[in-house]
Amino acid sequence: MSQKFQPIDASAVPRFAGLPTFMRLPHVTDPGLVDVALIGVPWDAGTTNRAGARHGPREIRNQSSFMRAVHHVSRIAPYELCRVADLGDAPVNPFDIHDTMDRITGFVSEIVAAGAVPLSAGGDHLCSLPLLRAVARDRPVGLVHFDAHSDTNDAYFGDNRYTHGTPFRRAVEEGLVDPTRTIQIGIRGSIYGADDMAFAEESGMRVVYIEEYFELGPAKVVEEIRRVVGSGPAYVTFDVDGIDPAFAPGTGTPEIGGYTTHEAQVMVRGLQGLDLVGGDVVEVAPPFDPSGGTALVGATLMFEILCVLAEARAKRGG
Amino acid sequence: MSQKFQPIDASAVPRFAGLPTFMRLPHVTDPGLVDVALIGVPWDAGTTNRAGARHGPREIRNQSSFMRAVHHVSRIAPYELCRVADLGDAPVNPFDIHDTMDRITGFVSEIVAAGAVPLSAGGDHLCSLPLLRAVARDRPVGLVHFDAHSDTNDAYFGDNRYTHGTPFRRAVEEGLVDPTRTIQIGIRGSIYGADDMAFAEESGMRVVYIEEYFELGPAKVVEEIRRVVGSGPAYVTFDVDGIDPAFAPGTGTPEIGGYTTHEAQVMVRGLQGLDLVGGDVVEVAPPFDPSGGTALVGATLMFEILCVLAEARAKRGG
Amino acid sequence: MSQKFQPIDASAVPRFAGLPTFMRLPHVTDPGLVDVALIGVPWDAGTTNRAGARHGPREIRNQSSFMRAVHHVSRIAPYELCRVADLGDAPVNPFDIHDTMDRITGFVSEIVAAGAVPLSAGGDHLCSLPLLRAVARDRPVGLVHFDAHSDTNDAYFGDNRYTHGTPFRRAVEEGLVDPTRTIQIGIRGSIYGADDMAFAEESGMRVVYIEEYFELGPAKVVEEIRRVVGSGPAYVTFDVDGIDPAFAPGTGTPEIGGYTTHEAQVMVRGLQGLDLVGGDVVEVAPPFDPSGGTALVGATLMFEILCVLAEARAKRGG
Amino acid sequence: MSQKFQPIDASAVPRFAGLPTFMRLPHVTDPGLVDVALIGVPWDAGTTNRAGARHGPREIRNQSSFMRAVHHVSRIAPYELCRVADLGDAPVNPFDIHDTMDRITGFVSEIVAAGAVPLSAGGDHLCSLPLLRAVARDRPVGLVHFDAHSDTNDAYFGDNRYTHGTPFRRAVEEGLVDPTRTIQIGIRGSIYGADDMAFAEESGMRVVYIEEYFELGPAKVVEEIRRVVGSGPAYVTFDVDGIDPAFAPGTGTPEIGGYTTHEAQVMVRGLQGLDLVGGDVVEVAPPFDPSGGTALVGATLMFEILCVLAEARAKRGG
Amino acid sequence: MSQKFQPIDASAVPRFAGLPTFMRLPHVTDPGLVDVALIGVPWDAGTTNRAGARHGPREIRNQSSFMRAVHHVSRIAPYELCRVADLGDAPVNPFDIHDTMDRITGFVSEIVAAGAVPLSAGGDHLCSLPLLRAVARDRPVGLVHFDAHSDTNDAYFGDNRYTHGTPFRRAVEEGLVDPTRTIQIGIRGSIYGADDMAFAEESGMRVVYIEEYFELGPAKVVEEIRRVVGSGPAYVTFDVDGIDPAFAPGTGTPEIGGYTTHEAQVMVRGLQGLDLVGGDVVEVAPPFDPSGGTALVGATLMFEILCVLAEARAKRGG
Amino acid sequence: MSQKFQPIDASAVPRFAGLPTFMRLPHVTDPGLVDVALIGVPWDAGTTNRAGARHGPREIRNQSSFMRAVHHVSRIAPYELCRVADLGDAPVNPFDIHDTMDRITGFVSEIVAAGAVPLSAGGDHLCSLPLLRAVARDRPVGLVHFDAHSDTNDAYFGDNRYTHGTPFRRAVEEGLVDPTRTIQIGIRGSIYGADDMAFAEESGMRVVYIEEYFELGPAKVVEEIRRVVGSGPAYVTFDVDGIDPAFAPGTGTPEIGGYTTHEAQVMVRGLQGLDLVGGDVVEVAPPFDPSGGTALVGATLMFEILCVLAEARAKRGG
Repeated sequence: MSQKFQPIDASAVPRFAGLPTFMRLPHVTDPGLVDVALIGVPWDAGTTNRAGARHGPREIRNQSSFMRAVHHVSRIAPYELCRVADLGDAPVNPFDIHDTMDRITGFVSEIVAAGAVPLSAGGDHLCSLPLLRAVARDRPVGLVHFDAHSDTNDAYFGDNRYTHGTPFRRAVEEGLVDPTRTIQIGIRGSIYGADDMAFAEESGMRVVYIEEYFELGPAKVVEEIRRVVGSGPAYVTFDVDGIDPAFAPGTGTPEIGGYTTHEAQVMVRGLQGLDLVGGDVVEVAPPFDPSGGTALVGATLMFEILCVLAEARAKRGG
Repeated sequence: MSQKFQPIDASAVPRFAGLPTFMRLPHVTDPGLVDVALIGVPWDAGTTNRAGARHGPREIRNQSSFMRAVHHVSRIAPYELCRVADLGDAPVNPFDIHDTMDRITGFVSEIVAAGAVPLSAGGDHLCSLPLLRAVARDRPVGLVHFDAHSDTNDAYFGDNRYTHGTPFRRAVEEGLVDPTRTIQIGIRGSIYGADDMAFAEESGMRVVYIEEYFELGPAKVVEEIRRVVGSGPAYVTFDVDGIDPAFAPGTGTPEIGGYTTHEAQVMVRGLQGLDLVGGDVVEVAPPFDPSGGTALVGATLMFEILCVLAEARAKRGG
Repeated sequence: MSQKFQPIDASAVPRFAGLPTFMRLPHVTDPGLVDVALIGVPWDAGTTNRAGARHGPREIRNQSSFMRAVHHVSRIAPYELCRVADLGDAPVNPFDIHDTMDRITGFVSEIVAAGAVPLSAGGDHLCSLPLLRAVARDRPVGLVHFDAHSDTNDAYFGDNRYTHGTPFRRAVEEGLVDPTRTIQIGIRGSIYGADDMAFAEESGMRVVYIEEYFELGPAKVVEEIRRVVGSGPAYVTFDVDGIDPAFAPGTGTPEIGGYTTHEAQVMVRGLQGLDLVGGDVVEVAPPFDPSGGTALVGATLMFEILCVLAEARAKRGG
Repeated sequence: MSQKFQPIDASAVPRFAGLPTFMRLPHVTDPGLVDVALIGVPWDAGTTNRAGARHGPREIRNQSSFMRAVHHVSRIAPYELCRVADLGDAPVNPFDIHDTMDRITGFVSEIVAAGAVPLSAGGDHLCSLPLLRAVARDRPVGLVHFDAHSDTNDAYFGDNRYTHGTPFRRAVEEGLVDPTRTIQIGIRGSIYGADDMAFAEESGMRVVYIEEYFELGPAKVVEEIRRVVGSGPAYVTFDVDGIDPAFAPGTGTPEIGGYTTHEAQVMVRGLQGLDLVGGDVVEVAPPFDPSGGTALVGATLMFEILCVLAEARAKRGG
Repeated sequence: MSQKFQPIDASAVPRFAGLPTFMRLPHVTDPGLVDVALIGVPWDAGTTNRAGARHGPREIRNQSSFMRAVHHVSRIAPYELCRVADLGDAPVNPFDIHDTMDRITGFVSEIVAAGAVPLSAGGDHLCSLPLLRAVARDRPVGLVHFDAHSDTNDAYFGDNRYTHGTPFRRAVEEGLVDPTRTIQIGIRGSIYGADDMAFAEESGMRVVYIEEYFELGPAKVVEEIRRVVGSGPAYVTFDVDGIDPAFAPGTGTPEIGGYTTHEAQVMVRGLQGLDLVGGDVVEVAPPFDPSGGTALVGATLMFEILCVLAEARAKRGG
Repeated sequence: MSQKFQPIDASAVPRFAGLPTFMRLPHVTDPGLVDVALIGVPWDAGTTNRAGARHGPREIRNQSSFMRAVHHVSRIAPYELCRVADLGDAPVNPFDIHDTMDRITGFVSEIVAAGAVPLSAGGDHLCSLPLLRAVARDRPVGLVHFDAHSDTNDAYFGDNRYTHGTPFRRAVEEGLVDPTRTIQIGIRGSIYGADDMAFAEESGMRVVYIEEYFELGPAKVVEEIRRVVGSGPAYVTFDVDGIDPAFAPGTGTPEIGGYTTHEAQVMVRGLQGLDLVGGDVVEVAPPFDPSGGTALVGATLMFEILCVLAEARAKRGG
């Protein structure tokens, strides 16, 4: 097995120095050299209201310099378990949704073919669809979905069926996601009409609305996640707007009344042991995040997911 | 009965398009056409420290484009229950407190006379006084008051008795508010002296200081609200500084250590079934809210109040 | 002739009060009632880098409350010369460039058919193309083009030919703009290659690069504008990035080293007497303009253009 | 003669250390100890649109820590010429215009009675009126007035005659300012009506509109100032909105197309030799100045005025 | 006993008026006149990443104008119990760590020698070390340490042993702090390696990691603090990054997932009755706090600490 | 000769995509592969007031994605003339001035030894000293110095002789810079005392104070630069605070009244033909530049310098 990459040590080289790669890891272009591929997807062409998530990967990379090497609770040391590096950005085209989805799927498919798992920073939530097309090509995966919105609408502004409000309906229709192994956590906000959630509920998704979330608390939600997803392969997608906008204001469609970052951390840590095959953090929109605080949230969640994903990847071996 | 107005649908016309009326509803000038009148009161002449709430109505209207049509928990569909529209702004004069209070009272009295209930966006908290003069002209009302401050002081800077720190003392003195049917929630912050709360307590108001609030939790506070207010007519006033400044920084007199937006939502939802006759959201100060996040909180609370207010109005019929 | 609309007087009603229509004019939906139609085009689907101009119309309307009624230099009183009102926003679809261009052209064609001239606030610079399709349907028009960029590129990211970097190449190809009656003012910034300006120069456009601009000064540039455009019908398009980013930072593609706002004003005033048939102000991007200062620049330029456009419209009569 | 106060030396004690007094001078409460009294007037009750200048003195004090001891062009060393100190803030009441004007006049009258000249940081432009009542009690003074607005309107929102749009009309009416020895520099912006400037022009003020300003240039404007004001006592008032908002965005009523800070400095330096008896810098509004840059402009202009004012005061002796 | 100083009353003089001293108290230079000395330490030379805490004292003073006179829960009236004033800033040198630490220790030693207790606003966390050298010169003190980081590292960037990541290791080594009477609350964030916490744990400090914190809740943590610290002399140090960055974003090393301000207040109030001999609030970094909200948190915590510290000081008498 | 590196083409890959290297060039670690080495120096340990320039290289790299390939005026195509790449950051230590200066000199000496010329982004102005130690080791160089400050002071806060206010005094003393071939452009701002400029003037530097600058204008200043520097080797250093803070607010020591960015560009272009051997752009401080506009100025100036530097390097051959 080839080299295990190490992040630059912030007690030796200050965090503000050097090129801002994810986690201060090396930039590597050959997916065969990694087990976990950190990638950016700088694309928000699916956004229905406030664009800006296209700038997410840059700023998440920038803020990820705050991360260190070992998880302080689980004691997972991802860079000891796996070869992890920054594989750069997926190719994108701001003007062509289908062309870009194909490019992203192609880019990630090479990673998957090389035996690595992708962990990406978006981009808006439509980015998850081409990622799932690569990761779940061979069989549907379970889905752990943190979000304020179900993203299972059908179409916008006429017959536009590929937007950041529709990816998981498409993913179910395409057989990429098993709705009965899907759980959505934090759904809230006023709705267009009484049947907004019909697809999610009728397809068999487990929807933890924010009210139920607050009743259960994060520990019990973790139990529910584990029950729903089970032992099969699963993908985790984290839309930062699941978190309350006091903690993560820099996003396109904020909804007040969400969970805290600490609770988000508890829930992601609870994924330890699941057979994770990929993940993403989406909807960090730097133009609405002048302080960079939301990108720091995104970078920290990416590190949290990395820990459980690297452990899953290491367990599968290869 | 005339037309029930519908907000512009954000899945058909993007949220950023069009004139920013409250909730994307039509701008209507005849109060006879509505059951619930959404109005702005762009006035902060009662502010003792940081002015800026005069710009509140514009920015709350702007952010209210994020709202949709149906409440996702209570399933209340306010635009099915009532005729709701944007009635524009009350007339104001930044230089004359008494003249402006008379103008506001006149503007709202026409709404009340037409059989509609007002729901306003301030403006500083002094705005509530002229609103109450219109709404409670015939009999005192109960008061559900969310705030970090009791606003029952007597005078500032000499003998200035009409400021945003005094409206509810004046309202009790004028017989507009029944202090024994009044509850204040979230009061906190260092005080001028040991007797700051004497008026509130001696007049019979139920004061839920923030410490008691955290002991009880929002569900029990809702019970207490319902017990105090009872079945008579009641007015709800929401000062955004009741909420913690992490969630609502854009206000003139922030006090750390408040409740969350989710808790605020739970409490407002708990007003369902009260005989509400009007409401307001005040002290959103856009110059201190560059991200617009506090205005989004204000707009969402306005939608939450609208749901319970529309239901109350529909129940009374007419 | 029907009513001449007047803006709300800021010495009677404070500027921060009321719905933010353009110039505080009434919102009118029948184009037959106006001579000059102020419209918004909230659309930035042609943006190659930093999106956000979709939010331009709202914030330009907001800041246009600073405008008063009469031009202090030319003494033009546009609301005495013409019927001017806010006609609202053109219909847009963030996901479909051709569909939206058709909708915009349709919306503006109705205005033109009613005998009115359009003055719009964008939106990115691609918005000018569908506007020109409506305004110049019957014959090519001259073009006064203020900008840091020529916007005569051919395609981006493969074969995407309709972007904010290409509208005037398309407009010439479609016969909407007469390149020999076109002048571009302020072109600057590093270039992709030595032939970037080939289309503009070979088609016969008069390009005043920023260096020549600074040599000539605004007064002589005005002479050059008048010489090039001549007495035929002309359209004026103002990209705020023509102005130096110190004065107008809130835009997607800033280029340092531009002209000042005062110089911009001098040049727009110099259009007095031209046979103007429409105009636009584009590329104000509020997410990059937290202070609103660029939107104020946009609103003031819109008022400046309104003065010369209203005079031209009045002169043509009808 | 008592002690000449020295500012804290920034090469000995860092600029960010210590209490932020004006120019890092001592805080002195006895006006008898100074020749030039630097004061704050934290009051904006005359503001017709965007309040915030009440916070000006604090932030100007803060930014004045950037100032050093000697003028680099004129070589004036004000702290060698005069006893200069920070006399604190005038007493104010946000709710009572007449009461506060009386208090300010009283506060400044004590300074004048002690033989000192006041140099104040506002506050909005209404602050100049009570200052002039103290400084010009015995005879009218000439006025050097830098501003985008003439501030000679009559009344707002009905019959409110004391606002930041009216002080110099009142000052002429009260015999405090000699209009024939008054010059206004930089007037611009759209106007309410054709007769907006009637009072200024008919009373004999010399108005240098911005267009004439740009024709003449600052050096010739200085000549004109000196010609108009002559050798009698004169007061200088600098509204930061005279400067272009690119340089001074943090103000309540920005008008694009103004002069630069360098040009402002040239003009203030041109006052050397006039018999100055007081001055002010007004309309710095920190809520609209998140970077503090406008307060730095205000502090630097205050230092520029201090140099010419101290020299004038020293020349008069006493 | 000499005069008990009173803060300026905000119901008499607006909060925005006057020089911004701590709590609007008088600036006093003789430590013999006070029992509790409020001081600033404008110094961040120990910062490993984002500097800016050098500007903390100014902005904390500014925001402390929001404070009033009496604690609303404990009813402690610190200005009745003790003579409290603003003693100004400790002398600092941005270029010399050891020289500055000596100066700070000297400055505070005079305060201690005069019988007063210091309560300081930093500055970065290295400031606590020279403060402890003055306060704990004669015997080690217990330490109540609120923070996201243990600050017990050994060295950075080679052999730099005096940084904001090392003060409490040094303090233990120097015999200033008794590690067995030390408690750290809120420690979290990814770590450099598995032995990051070895010094803290092996020296006997009680470390309440954030996970344990959330299990226990603030009330039980208070019990633990009281158990660990006992009845001996103790010092309280509050790094604002212990609080979640949603509540206190303006700091150099934010770590998501912390406690709320309300919880922080509960814990500080729980120190009532301890034999406190000094305290500090550190790591407020205004360049990362454009809204001033973190400085308001800092000022409020300073007031909270003042209450329990003044009571302890009064109890000891003298 | 090895490969000529090309920047990523923004008409093929959007500017927001990919790792932000300088000018979107490859990151190369072997100095032997380049003729011009673009480097970062993330270090501000010499800052006397507002730190933050340590973050400059990251943000300048980020904004440099706006740059294209060819200069639009001079038509210089630097990537055709020379091998240009991003060599990463010099090693730094925030706690040790002399150690870091040695490291920077070592890092740059390797570049120089390989036959390349360095063009760096700071960092504060002290960074220029270790750069000059590498570049001018063998003989003194001429200096073109754009700045508001002379930076020829002797010491701060006692005997600290290596700060951002002293580098060019040290450079002359060390024989690195020939003061008679040195020109400083834009010097301004109040001064500590009458002899502040004694060293600069007595050593023979040509000082173009801002007043002379405005008299001469940039074209004549270019002539003066060329006359002073002559045909020998020269280094160009650009402190962004030479530019007016309206154009470049994000810097530690702003001084109002500077030149525009366009004028700066004209002057840098005027260096064409000089025998340039290195350059730097310093004092971009991102914490004071929330919009990134100052970093864009820095990146554009870096591109401007690159053009004239690459041409000089190509002319020397090798």
